[in-house]
Amino acid sequence: MKRLSTLTVALLLCTLSFAQQALWGGAPIVSPEINSDNTVTFRLKAPDNMKVQITGDFLPTQKIQTPYGEFDGPGVADLTLGKDGIWEFTTPTPLSPELYSYSFLVNDLKMMDPSNVYSIRDVASTTNVFIVGGERADLYKVNKVPHGTVSRMWYNSPQLGIDRRLTVYTPAGYETSSKNYPVLYLLHGMGGDEEAWMALGRSSQILDNLIAQGKAEPMIVVMTNGNAALEAAPGESSLGMTAPSMQLPKTMEGSFELAFPEVVDFVDNNFRTVKSKSGRAIAGLSMGGYHSLHISKQYPDMFDYIGLFSAAILPNQGVTSPVYDNLETKLKTQFDKKPALYWIAIGNKDFLYQANNDYRKLLDEKGYPYTYLETEDGHIWKNWRIYLTEFTPLLFKQKTA
Amino acid sequence: MKRLSTLTVALLLCTLSFAQQALWGGAPIVSPEINSDNTVTFRLKAPDNMKVQITGDFLPTQKIQTPYGEFDGPGVADLTLGKDGIWEFTTPTPLSPELYSYSFLVNDLKMMDPSNVYSIRDVASTTNVFIVGGERADLYKVNKVPHGTVSRMWYNSPQLGIDRRLTVYTPAGYETSSKNYPVLYLLHGMGGDEEAWMALGRSSQILDNLIAQGKAEPMIVVMTNGNAALEAAPGESSLGMTAPSMQLPKTMEGSFELAFPEVVDFVDNNFRTVKSKSGRAIAGLSMGGYHSLHISKQYPDMFDYIGLFSAAILPNQGVTSPVYDNLETKLKTQFDKKPALYWIAIGNKDFLYQANNDYRKLLDEKGYPYTYLETEDGHIWKNWRIYLTEFTPLLFKQKTA
Repeated sequence: MKRLSTLTVALLLCTLSFAQQALWGGAPIVSPEINSDNTVTFRLKAPDNMKVQITGDFLPTQKIQTPYGEFDGPGVADLTLGKDGIWEFTTPTPLSPELYSYSFLVNDLKMMDPSNVYSIRDVASTTNVFIVGGERADLYKVNKVPHGTVSRMWYNSPQLGIDRRLTVYTPAGYETSSKNYPVLYLLHGMGGDEEAWMALGRSSQILDNLIAQGKAEPMIVVMTNGNAALEAAPGESSLGMTAPSMQLPKTMEGSFELAFPEVVDFVDNNFRTVKSKSGRAIAGLSMGGYHSLHISKQYPDMFDYIGLFSAAILPNQGVTSPVYDNLETKLKTQFDKKPALYWIAIGNKDFLYQANNDYRKLLDEKGYPYTYLETEDGHIWKNWRIYLTEFTPLLFKQKTA
Repeated sequence: MKRLSTLTVALLLCTLSFAQQALWGGAPIVSPEINSDNTVTFRLKAPDNMKVQITGDFLPTQKIQTPYGEFDGPGVADLTLGKDGIWEFTTPTPLSPELYSYSFLVNDLKMMDPSNVYSIRDVASTTNVFIVGGERADLYKVNKVPHGTVSRMWYNSPQLGIDRRLTVYTPAGYETSSKNYPVLYLLHGMGGDEEAWMALGRSSQILDNLIAQGKAEPMIVVMTNGNAALEAAPGESSLGMTAPSMQLPKTMEGSFELAFPEVVDFVDNNFRTVKSKSGRAIAGLSMGGYHSLHISKQYPDMFDYIGLFSAAILPNQGVTSPVYDNLETKLKTQFDKKPALYWIAIGNKDFLYQANNDYRKLLDEKGYPYTYLETEDGHIWKNWRIYLTEFTPLLFKQKTA
């Protein structure tokens, strides 16, 4: 038997049929490169007869005209052609610590950065991402701390008539401990699914880091799919590999909210949980904030901690469900039972700012206590990551003090 | 408080800033479209002054010249411009049931299909995927069957000096049962990581489906990271969001193999397992087959079922480790203990075909029994999915008969 002296090269060739560039044709292209001063350089190898641009959430926004009116879209910048056919763009100023997303535009066609394998799907669109570290953004990184376990599992929903997928974070030490843990139910927005808080919200990283720093109690986090007609995220469903759609039936009409105790029962039956109101929190962004508002008042003995992150407040006109009836009566019942925390946060440029303002006025008029956080910017993931880092340290403190 | 009658539209606008096409500008583009005769149509909206092509593993291969010699690369086909600026290509013949991957090439620049959110990362390269169903490929789909749980978790490796991530599949019913389950340790190839068997190997779908059909015993599947110097897959490691590399230290020099009992101990301590040789299998592809060969003979009382999928056999020249010493003596010890199954599979065009042939000759000369499967094609994931569907039904039958 002869030794395979060229084994490594052969393995490389055979498993890299789509990625020759890194093997031959010169040094691999580094993109994005976070420079020592926190400016960031992007590079793309492309022919010289093309228009090569970048669009991303770190560029100044630009107005976009749509049939529904004008709104702020992501900015665009030009790359310039350097030697060796490599196009390049460096941000004119350092970027603040944050998770950023971007795509290239080649002759106006959106494309991923082939040098960057880090991408996230947001609804039906995939973009590259990178993190500029420091300050709060260090919470979004995987650090050398004990890591929780993240499980994708399925529960049966008799009310919705399907098996449904959910994502569960259990904190480091859960497997080897015998104690019961409190649970945060963390809900996504319209177009999202049970992967959104993991991919865009950096939820497992934020929890790992805050728990390791002693700032948040060890807790279980349950990330459900809030689209009542769906089994699971795209590609994970027996409905096939159909593209996701924003136009989902049964999304904000009460059935998800009414069936929510099935999720709580499943979690209580499959994990070592604190099986009482004082051990449960519910929070969500946008549509998930709407779900949290309506679920928590529908089931006023279920959750002691409620978080509304840039929440939608009231149902669309014409939508009827027992969940939405008697808003003020149900709120009175909920607040008479004195929840440990009712937490509202929104950006000052959010299109839901006025609706949240109106809702806070209602709470103020009734004398219902809540905690309020107002941040910059609008209806974006940057805010929802901030809210998760601010909200989770407030949870379950009375339990374990 | 006024009702937000435009709530849905506003939510759409705010969460879809990168995906306007589906909202205005006409009907969304469907790509890929699997037609009723199993031909497949691909579509891309692009300007008319460009060269628009597709490359994928369903096209006839073409010879690629490299500094390391000529090898078969994926084929390329031209799209043609139709009305409305939409480019289109339909496969000339129906595609057989299989999972396929592809990318567009626009003026030779590789880009993802913006209409298809299903993509997989293979080492440092991301491509779109789709499944043509039927026959064996139905095992690769998410079907309406009970689903197992897939957990990403971390174990500490004192021998390797780091915390390391692994992926664990537990079969449907694990959480509510009290029985102990056998375990398959399933190892990836060079450049892969603890995500590879999930993303490219469709391991959880294959196990869900085979178990639901009664063809495989319910089992736990543990997918480790075989790169001894690494903590985790790219993006999941505290080493940062650096791009993956094939040129990894400590990949095939014995340290992963020597430390493998740490993984088995962790799994036995954290799951309800059959804690004996008869309840353990180890299998892997390419480098993972090499790991399986050497781990199973180094620890001959640990695994009753061994699977070598297109395995590398012997270490590179100059590599020394106690793991690789005394090959024939250790093989004698292993086979004297009569493993329940020693299973070898390879494609007839695999560059490791001759090395496997030589290894089988050695086993034949010694009279060591093994089961052999030879398939078409080379060193590709299509074969490794086939091998997983053939291997797992052979496992643990004596245990539960």
